[in-house]
Amino acid sequence: MALVVQKYGGSSVADAERIRRVAERIVETKKQGNDVVVVVSAMGDTTDELLDLANQVCPAPPPREMDMLLTAGERISNALVAMAIHSLGAQARSFTGSQAGVITTGIHGNAKIIDVTPGRLRDALDEGVIVLVAGFQGVSQDSKDVTTLGRGGSDTTAVALAAALKADVCEIYTDVDGIFTADPRIVPNAHHLDQVSFEEMLEMAACGAKVLMLRCVEYARRYNVPIRVRSSYSDNPGTLVIGSMEDIPVEDAILTGVAHDRSEAKVTVVGIPDVPGYAAKVFRAVADADINIDMVLQNISKVEDGKTDITFTCPRDNGPAAVQKLSSLQGEIGFTGVLYDDHIGKVSLVGAGMKSHPGVTAKFCETLASVGVNIDLISTSEIRISVLVKDTDLDKAVAALHEAFGLGGDKDAIVYAGTGR
Amino acid sequence: MALVVQKYGGSSVADAERIRRVAERIVETKKQGNDVVVVVSAMGDTTDELLDLANQVCPAPPPREMDMLLTAGERISNALVAMAIHSLGAQARSFTGSQAGVITTGIHGNAKIIDVTPGRLRDALDEGVIVLVAGFQGVSQDSKDVTTLGRGGSDTTAVALAAALKADVCEIYTDVDGIFTADPRIVPNAHHLDQVSFEEMLEMAACGAKVLMLRCVEYARRYNVPIRVRSSYSDNPGTLVIGSMEDIPVEDAILTGVAHDRSEAKVTVVGIPDVPGYAAKVFRAVADADINIDMVLQNISKVEDGKTDITFTCPRDNGPAAVQKLSSLQGEIGFTGVLYDDHIGKVSLVGAGMKSHPGVTAKFCETLASVGVNIDLISTSEIRISVLVKDTDLDKAVAALHEAFGLGGDKDAIVYAGTGR
Repeated sequence: MALVVQKYGGSSVADAERIRRVAERIVETKKQGNDVVVVVSAMGDTTDELLDLANQVCPAPPPREMDMLLTAGERISNALVAMAIHSLGAQARSFTGSQAGVITTGIHGNAKIIDVTPGRLRDALDEGVIVLVAGFQGVSQDSKDVTTLGRGGSDTTAVALAAALKADVCEIYTDVDGIFTADPRIVPNAHHLDQVSFEEMLEMAACGAKVLMLRCVEYARRYNVPIRVRSSYSDNPGTLVIGSMEDIPVEDAILTGVAHDRSEAKVTVVGIPDVPGYAAKVFRAVADADINIDMVLQNISKVEDGKTDITFTCPRDNGPAAVQKLSSLQGEIGFTGVLYDDHIGKVSLVGAGMKSHPGVTAKFCETLASVGVNIDLISTSEIRISVLVKDTDLDKAVAALHEAFGLGGDKDAIVYAGTGR
Repeated sequence: MALVVQKYGGSSVADAERIRRVAERIVETKKQGNDVVVVVSAMGDTTDELLDLANQVCPAPPPREMDMLLTAGERISNALVAMAIHSLGAQARSFTGSQAGVITTGIHGNAKIIDVTPGRLRDALDEGVIVLVAGFQGVSQDSKDVTTLGRGGSDTTAVALAAALKADVCEIYTDVDGIFTADPRIVPNAHHLDQVSFEEMLEMAACGAKVLMLRCVEYARRYNVPIRVRSSYSDNPGTLVIGSMEDIPVEDAILTGVAHDRSEAKVTVVGIPDVPGYAAKVFRAVADADINIDMVLQNISKVEDGKTDITFTCPRDNGPAAVQKLSSLQGEIGFTGVLYDDHIGKVSLVGAGMKSHPGVTAKFCETLASVGVNIDLISTSEIRISVLVKDTDLDKAVAALHEAFGLGGDKDAIVYAGTGR
């Protein structure tokens, strides 16, 4: 008998009809002889509706109360799924994050899981009951207040429960059939991947593949929890994320896929004194504004004036704040000016096969040149090449790289309707 | 400095605008130098919407999950009120029933409060924070599951917190200005009562006065918590429910008012053997079906056949179940048949003054006779007379009794719009 953790996103439980379908799938898994733990996100638009109400009563709601408010959404969806399971003749019991023993840091809105003490879940499983856990939420270790885990929190809850309960697999149900070599909406013959290593999945997620959140994959890798990404609209097996890249024989190592990301903006700080310590001042300023930096480029110093430029990318949502923070320190740091560009996109090629195949970078750049796409900035890791291009060139770049590296499958990928997560 | 507990019903927080008004009143109370604890019901139609969703996914939802579902409503409204208070510049912190230490029995949907351990509330008050508590909910002592208190549960939460925190007063905000000598919608010159004893309020509530639930008054009486019933739409002082009837000097004891109740049905069991133990069998059957009986009448035995009839009233919602249960036992108990009538109403006159004024019952019956209202059944207590009449005669009976016993005020009562609780 296996222990299976399943996670369903908000679009999978958007209304009573879909909740009943999810319940059928859960009961089917139980009937196959498995112990089943299920994490459900809030129904469809619930979170947006609650956010809207909050903004109507308070322009800047206190984060503690925001967490108290938003966690009601998962409580509702989990109780409803439990009821739907009950009406199919099986037994189910729903638990809040706190009841499930999801213990977190105290940072409201973006708490981190410190520990999971799933005693009540274990007891319920031992009774043969299907266990439901409200995702995205926990209880802070110090204040015992309700916390939320931030974006992708329900996926992380599922993986954390799977780790704590030593589950055999954590199934993440979404609106696509798993991981593809590229976004099937851009590359119609994108190839479905049956299995991906944790490292490759981490790079894909970090480069904009939205199917799994980075945090959730990091957690799964750390605790070695196999993740199966599946569609809640089909019975296809999806993609299994498992194992280390190190375990893949060199001759089997391939390229995983082409990821893209439209969510970043580019900031260029112009005319910085090319003296040790000045770049650090720039990045300290951005870090103090709580903004994550992704790619970085420092131009070669212009010898004649002893000044240089620094370019970096950050989430587009934080772009204006980064510019504001830097501008406020212009006199102190002593640079000439700040440029801002949010008409950019990032395209990345990921795969363990890159390590053993020389010339990938050259072919990458040649391919983009051949379709007239200009490269703004390059960054690489052992198993990844990422470049920044104009946002209007992004689709073209993805399609050309996918084709050039022979990633296409035999048949077109099926794209499911749905809101995604 | 006083400690004030305030409770606001669902119509008082039905939308963002009303939530902001409630927040203003709470902050005003705090600014007057009081410690403030607030219990808020779920917003307007939230509970009905959640019930509707539950019925869509499961015809008979398990009570444990129903409680998990419904308690989300209070969580939402309390967090929103906390945010609205925050935006007025005051500090507020919301707590679930469980966090507030509301410990209950394990009967989902109708749990009873066993104990209140308000340590976290006390700490927050000591910090000068306004405390919000989700009403209607608690945590079961044995299973640690989320429970709800049933109808009027938020009022009971407020009174229980007031008792545990030794509050100076528990203010129940509603859509009327307090307690009147009759329902102002039926009797326009109904008189506002400034003060009522616990016993009188208990009788009024038991007889259908909907402003306060019976359970809440019972709790307040047991722990001697003064209740002030006020309108959330005015600054009028409302009605203070305080003190024992025994403390009222005989010469000051008056009649409290006329209450009415349209929620009952009448069941008559015909042709029962007039032998000891047969009436007990009837009431045991009804009790086994978990149905509360209100009024009871056993007719004088017809000597010729040694048989008698028993009539009782019960909540109209339970009427069909009572009839079904009795009919199923017809052979076993050995009666002739069961009659059912839900076109009835109950009118009651309540007041400590009844004890010292003989002839009240006579005048009561004469008054109804004079307006052509037939009495079906009479029941009395030390400070109450109740009779069953045809439902179509109910308004006439209320108005006539109110007039005959001189309960009218000088000016007409103001009736506020609102859904009530």
